[in-house]
Amino acid sequence: MADRLIGEKLVDDMTVEEKARAALVEQVLPALRAKAGQADRDGAFPREHIGLLRDAGLMGLIVPEEYGGLGGTLRDLAAATYAMGSACPSTALAFFFHNTSASRGLLPLEAIESGLFAGDEVPVVKAFAEKVLRLMSGGAWLANFASESVKSSGANIAIATTAVPATRGETDGWELTGEKSFGCATGIADHYLVTARLDGYETADGLVMFLVPRDAEGVSERPFWDGLGMRGSANHGIRLDGVFIPQEDALTVPGAFVKMLQCSRGSFVGNQLAITAVYVGAAQGVYDDTLERLTRKTFADTGRPIAESPMHQVIIGDMTESLERAYLWLRRQLLLETCEPPIATKSEVYAQWRIAKGSICQAAFDVALGALKASGTSAATMNGTVGRALRDLSMGLVMTFPPERGRLEAASVITSNKANDLFASVAK
Amino acid sequence: MADRLIGEKLVDDMTVEEKARAALVEQVLPALRAKAGQADRDGAFPREHIGLLRDAGLMGLIVPEEYGGLGGTLRDLAAATYAMGSACPSTALAFFFHNTSASRGLLPLEAIESGLFAGDEVPVVKAFAEKVLRLMSGGAWLANFASESVKSSGANIAIATTAVPATRGETDGWELTGEKSFGCATGIADHYLVTARLDGYETADGLVMFLVPRDAEGVSERPFWDGLGMRGSANHGIRLDGVFIPQEDALTVPGAFVKMLQCSRGSFVGNQLAITAVYVGAAQGVYDDTLERLTRKTFADTGRPIAESPMHQVIIGDMTESLERAYLWLRRQLLLETCEPPIATKSEVYAQWRIAKGSICQAAFDVALGALKASGTSAATMNGTVGRALRDLSMGLVMTFPPERGRLEAASVITSNKANDLFASVAK
Amino acid sequence: MADRLIGEKLVDDMTVEEKARAALVEQVLPALRAKAGQADRDGAFPREHIGLLRDAGLMGLIVPEEYGGLGGTLRDLAAATYAMGSACPSTALAFFFHNTSASRGLLPLEAIESGLFAGDEVPVVKAFAEKVLRLMSGGAWLANFASESVKSSGANIAIATTAVPATRGETDGWELTGEKSFGCATGIADHYLVTARLDGYETADGLVMFLVPRDAEGVSERPFWDGLGMRGSANHGIRLDGVFIPQEDALTVPGAFVKMLQCSRGSFVGNQLAITAVYVGAAQGVYDDTLERLTRKTFADTGRPIAESPMHQVIIGDMTESLERAYLWLRRQLLLETCEPPIATKSEVYAQWRIAKGSICQAAFDVALGALKASGTSAATMNGTVGRALRDLSMGLVMTFPPERGRLEAASVITSNKANDLFASVAK
Amino acid sequence: MADRLIGEKLVDDMTVEEKARAALVEQVLPALRAKAGQADRDGAFPREHIGLLRDAGLMGLIVPEEYGGLGGTLRDLAAATYAMGSACPSTALAFFFHNTSASRGLLPLEAIESGLFAGDEVPVVKAFAEKVLRLMSGGAWLANFASESVKSSGANIAIATTAVPATRGETDGWELTGEKSFGCATGIADHYLVTARLDGYETADGLVMFLVPRDAEGVSERPFWDGLGMRGSANHGIRLDGVFIPQEDALTVPGAFVKMLQCSRGSFVGNQLAITAVYVGAAQGVYDDTLERLTRKTFADTGRPIAESPMHQVIIGDMTESLERAYLWLRRQLLLETCEPPIATKSEVYAQWRIAKGSICQAAFDVALGALKASGTSAATMNGTVGRALRDLSMGLVMTFPPERGRLEAASVITSNKANDLFASVAK
Repeated sequence: MADRLIGEKLVDDMTVEEKARAALVEQVLPALRAKAGQADRDGAFPREHIGLLRDAGLMGLIVPEEYGGLGGTLRDLAAATYAMGSACPSTALAFFFHNTSASRGLLPLEAIESGLFAGDEVPVVKAFAEKVLRLMSGGAWLANFASESVKSSGANIAIATTAVPATRGETDGWELTGEKSFGCATGIADHYLVTARLDGYETADGLVMFLVPRDAEGVSERPFWDGLGMRGSANHGIRLDGVFIPQEDALTVPGAFVKMLQCSRGSFVGNQLAITAVYVGAAQGVYDDTLERLTRKTFADTGRPIAESPMHQVIIGDMTESLERAYLWLRRQLLLETCEPPIATKSEVYAQWRIAKGSICQAAFDVALGALKASGTSAATMNGTVGRALRDLSMGLVMTFPPERGRLEAASVITSNKANDLFASVAK
Repeated sequence: MADRLIGEKLVDDMTVEEKARAALVEQVLPALRAKAGQADRDGAFPREHIGLLRDAGLMGLIVPEEYGGLGGTLRDLAAATYAMGSACPSTALAFFFHNTSASRGLLPLEAIESGLFAGDEVPVVKAFAEKVLRLMSGGAWLANFASESVKSSGANIAIATTAVPATRGETDGWELTGEKSFGCATGIADHYLVTARLDGYETADGLVMFLVPRDAEGVSERPFWDGLGMRGSANHGIRLDGVFIPQEDALTVPGAFVKMLQCSRGSFVGNQLAITAVYVGAAQGVYDDTLERLTRKTFADTGRPIAESPMHQVIIGDMTESLERAYLWLRRQLLLETCEPPIATKSEVYAQWRIAKGSICQAAFDVALGALKASGTSAATMNGTVGRALRDLSMGLVMTFPPERGRLEAASVITSNKANDLFASVAK
Repeated sequence: MADRLIGEKLVDDMTVEEKARAALVEQVLPALRAKAGQADRDGAFPREHIGLLRDAGLMGLIVPEEYGGLGGTLRDLAAATYAMGSACPSTALAFFFHNTSASRGLLPLEAIESGLFAGDEVPVVKAFAEKVLRLMSGGAWLANFASESVKSSGANIAIATTAVPATRGETDGWELTGEKSFGCATGIADHYLVTARLDGYETADGLVMFLVPRDAEGVSERPFWDGLGMRGSANHGIRLDGVFIPQEDALTVPGAFVKMLQCSRGSFVGNQLAITAVYVGAAQGVYDDTLERLTRKTFADTGRPIAESPMHQVIIGDMTESLERAYLWLRRQLLLETCEPPIATKSEVYAQWRIAKGSICQAAFDVALGALKASGTSAATMNGTVGRALRDLSMGLVMTFPPERGRLEAASVITSNKANDLFASVAK
Repeated sequence: MADRLIGEKLVDDMTVEEKARAALVEQVLPALRAKAGQADRDGAFPREHIGLLRDAGLMGLIVPEEYGGLGGTLRDLAAATYAMGSACPSTALAFFFHNTSASRGLLPLEAIESGLFAGDEVPVVKAFAEKVLRLMSGGAWLANFASESVKSSGANIAIATTAVPATRGETDGWELTGEKSFGCATGIADHYLVTARLDGYETADGLVMFLVPRDAEGVSERPFWDGLGMRGSANHGIRLDGVFIPQEDALTVPGAFVKMLQCSRGSFVGNQLAITAVYVGAAQGVYDDTLERLTRKTFADTGRPIAESPMHQVIIGDMTESLERAYLWLRRQLLLETCEPPIATKSEVYAQWRIAKGSICQAAFDVALGALKASGTSAATMNGTVGRALRDLSMGLVMTFPPERGRLEAASVITSNKANDLFASVAK
């Protein structure tokens, strides 16, 4: 199947429009690839990539055309993060987090459509949602900051950052205080999309959202975090010390977050599967590199490719199975979340995702581990293809939780109809 | 997703016509299920199933309508063997082998279309192909006998059964001598479709096919084979001692077998993936049974379902992942072999299948093993659901070769463009 | 290392005395092996084995010489059940359960030594303990019946069988009512050693023991249980309907059971590791058989042994690793429970055993599964070496609980110093 | 078991003398541990460790007392590299390679004892052997350089470095030319023990050894190698460009290398198992650290330790099993190679080692992977305990070959009595 776009390896039934958008992604890949090694070595986001992606019009990849975007869907996003992941996983990861911001525009609009908001809430919700989408299609980088370092036994993400009503001069607004422990494009994004809890609320109904300008007073970057992998994604996170945000940059209607989640068709807040596409892209990258090397290098005594030794055949067979397994889970999840008419209930989609995300990331990591074993000491370097892939892909095992957790969550859903909460509001 | 046909769990985008055919299958399932335990205990094919399937019109399930069949495709066949596998794996297996006979009609016709046969060969080939298809749509059971007990290091199946030209009275024909070690519906099928080698040929060009009536002189059943699982499929095989077959029931054009294989779009001789659907159906069966039991049974001290214990949660999570993994490989293979336009080359489809078949059967077996572990001693019986599933599913590990072999074969294809031969002609 | 006794493969540093006892075991192995297949087919304990073992003096294998026994220790028992396991796993299993009875004699004596019993309790406890040991060394078969079908979330074994004080004529005693769901030598053993709970007690302090004659009034066998494996061990269990046992055949001092457990140096009630030796012996048996077969059978085209094919090499490598892994866990546990001076605390020994038992049984099962895969369809029969081994070894996964449970129990001990109870007393 | 030396966790039956030597090791551990992080960050051997180890008298740890050493055996060496591995894996690795030099003294002496050398060869061999041992006990660091980057399909290590007879002034000797791709303490060791091939020889009979002073003319360090792990071991290797070595610093008796190997009791050239002890020590280190952290850190909502979550229990159970498995293989191998009288033939010891080394390193790596999964993003840093352990332990998968290779090698030995050669002489 020659002359395919890279993204078509994952999404193998692209429409003409999808191919056009994927071609925009494809053109930036050489530049991403060229900087990937350096970004990893320096542990620094390659700033020139911002302009590159903006100029390619990709900031609005999944913003509907009516809001000035390219009109892509989750299929486009997955194809994009996959393709970028094969070139520079860090950039792909950061780009993924930018795009998750779109759900904070799209899902509220869907919730309005579904009649989940009261009449007087609608204009407020609509204004915030459209602002998010217009910013994105206008070329702004919107980093999405949810994770915190506090842990809750009953929820995947616990929110302790607090929003208190405040006034600055004439302007009503909110004061934010807290810490976001993980978020790509820290110090890079134009705005941080921050999830916080309304002071006084104890449930997810109190979860609210703010658009925090990167340089707002009281915003500071957390110390540089010397990550094991994905080192070029600037994910060290921020501190918010009484940061004032005017009401117009906030969505504080109680219950809005929960209503938004109700409209998500699938995994998590709507497009989380595209993060696993980053890892699958990275796995394909190291797989290709390894096979090329091992079929080129030969044994001194027989002249045959090293790849043909019994041990290499075993490892290559295992790597091939792992890689394909990653694709299988990812493609299926993509189908479940995008096909019309739907072929599974939301609850089924959700249970599947619980298992899928860990299985994908584990399988992708296993490919890197196989590459290490097959390549021997000479490739076991810090910054070579194999060492970098092992480090980058190890991050997938913790960022989306290990497969051990996903399977337990699925078992709980299946046997008790008891699902973990996605978000918890936690008083400090 | 309520009110679906069982087969739709596997093929989740059935057309209206496919649903109609699947409904024919669905109606025989209760009867199959009712006899499954007894068939296993006795190690005997339930003869009443023959009439059942014939009366339902299922003998011609995948025979084109122009030849009197139902016009189903590989999608129908997979949905059918899957659904039957959830009721009576042995019957599903035997039904699968009956249907593989269709490829001996369909593929030669395709080879004619593709111009692979010389002008004078065409009528001969066409006559045999149509005879096979007409027999099937007419309600005959055509068991397909290829496997032999001799092993070849370079091929998946080695053929030592020999065909020698012979004449009986006025009739020209062939005399067959050899032994077929494995073939479902032994002593049950109306005709055995036998693959043999032309005396004197050393390559696959000498492979030829015969329609051998069950009661032909010189045909005998091998001794009853007390199989570990799939005991109701009558797979003990036959001996052929100078069995005379007239030319009109033979396809002996040299090279016909190879040309036929060239027209197979996918796995093996065309529809082998449906055998793995049998195992996936059986795995779903034991999975459902186990979950139902473990959520119903409770702990004496807490009153909570046994399924909620930490160990059970771990095993159920693992079983769920294994089961879904089996579906993922199988659905993907089905897509690769049936979608239009094709999204992969024949060689890619083929490499994928090498891995898929072992992965599916291993995953299905793992479900049964999880069911055993989760269910404890009380379910570890010979003929209960769990014990039977473990035995039936263990057969999948040997019948389609273990996953260890598939991965090695794929590695060999990938690194050396060197594929195992499917069939070898072996002089005794 | 030629001319070793079979048991020396496991216990590779036998003393002269141990070798002498192992030689007694070795001499019965040919007879055990000769009946193994038949016992499995019939699902019946080979009664002639009772006399065989008795005549060899093996009933008192681990009874101290001062009580008329052979004076063996856990090392002898493990070597014996291992060696028997390689010949007839069912008999090995039943012999193991007979020997566990010895702990009901030995541990109470140790508890007396340690001053755990009050002065007036000592003679009563001593009398019962000595009775158990004298019966064994006298040639009686003492089946040990603890397991019941009721499950407790907090304990490994839950006891609901009740003992109520009763009098028959002049004789004070107890009336037992309940059901023992699993126990080898049902209907075969001379006495059943039954664990019950004193009516009115809710904790393990109420656990008490009785010597129940096989033919006592009110004792009946549960229906024949058509087990998946270990079919010749007569493990279908008994019902007790108001069975009267005189006080002299009972150990009903409250707390005696718990005190006994305190004196166990290691796993469970003292010698449970010998049950896993049964499975390791069976695994070695099927491993040897498979390698012999695969190195003898050759490919038709190359004349080389089938064992040398790439797939076979992979599977044989895996089987070898699994088998050795089983030995490693078992030998280590044996060392921990028998070496002088001790090299681990009781709690460490115990945590190790939690993991060891599942790991051993899983590894042994994996050997059988590898044998199946390597041997192909022709060996996938119900009663052949491979099929029988797969069935027998699958029982190890449920009888000692799956490895998934052991690892969780160990994790709980490690992180919370919270161990599962071994026995719970459960009111019906 | 309180107050044990760290090394006793591995070698749990130390003699008094062994404990005294282990105490010497124990005293240097705090200093090793203190520099471990920095050494990893800088990718540089901590030079202060040389004096530290020398002053502690450890350079001659396994040199017999008659040659001025401490008289330790492989048991001491394994305990030492294990203990050091728990503090600073890089130093432990380099110390291991220093000690492997001792075999080049001890094995030739054994070969003389066994009469393998002709009368006139004896003094030459003896002189070289004693020189090696005296250097070590005198405090010199002797790095052992065997590996090269060329690969042979039939041997584990291929030697292409060539020795050609040469004379400098009055002195007869040899000129060495070649490249050693891997060797710890490059630029650090006082002497490199270099294996080369006599020009003109094609078999292992031509393998010879030289003591190359670090600063000899023609010796240069290969470019710094930015390893993924074990970064403080200075393993980048050397180039030899016509380096002249006088005869007295050479062992060039043809066949000497092979005769030496014949005297090795066990794994490889005599003490290779101690390299795997490095990895087991490192695994224990990250295990302890992780459990301490996870039992201390608590959930915000429940106040319970994070370690008690279901996912953490699963992962901790798995880590515990993996860690213990690593010990089991290592302790067994140590027993096989040191116990008197031997309990296995050399060939059995050897086959066991083939599997053991990969199994140990894989199990140790799995512990680090579990630590990563259990610890989450916050611990997924480059230089923290977990990230460093993952990188260090990944090296074990390639340095001693992956477990996939060991199992295949064992299978080959078992089925064909065909073992890989350890060393091959390869013409360039």
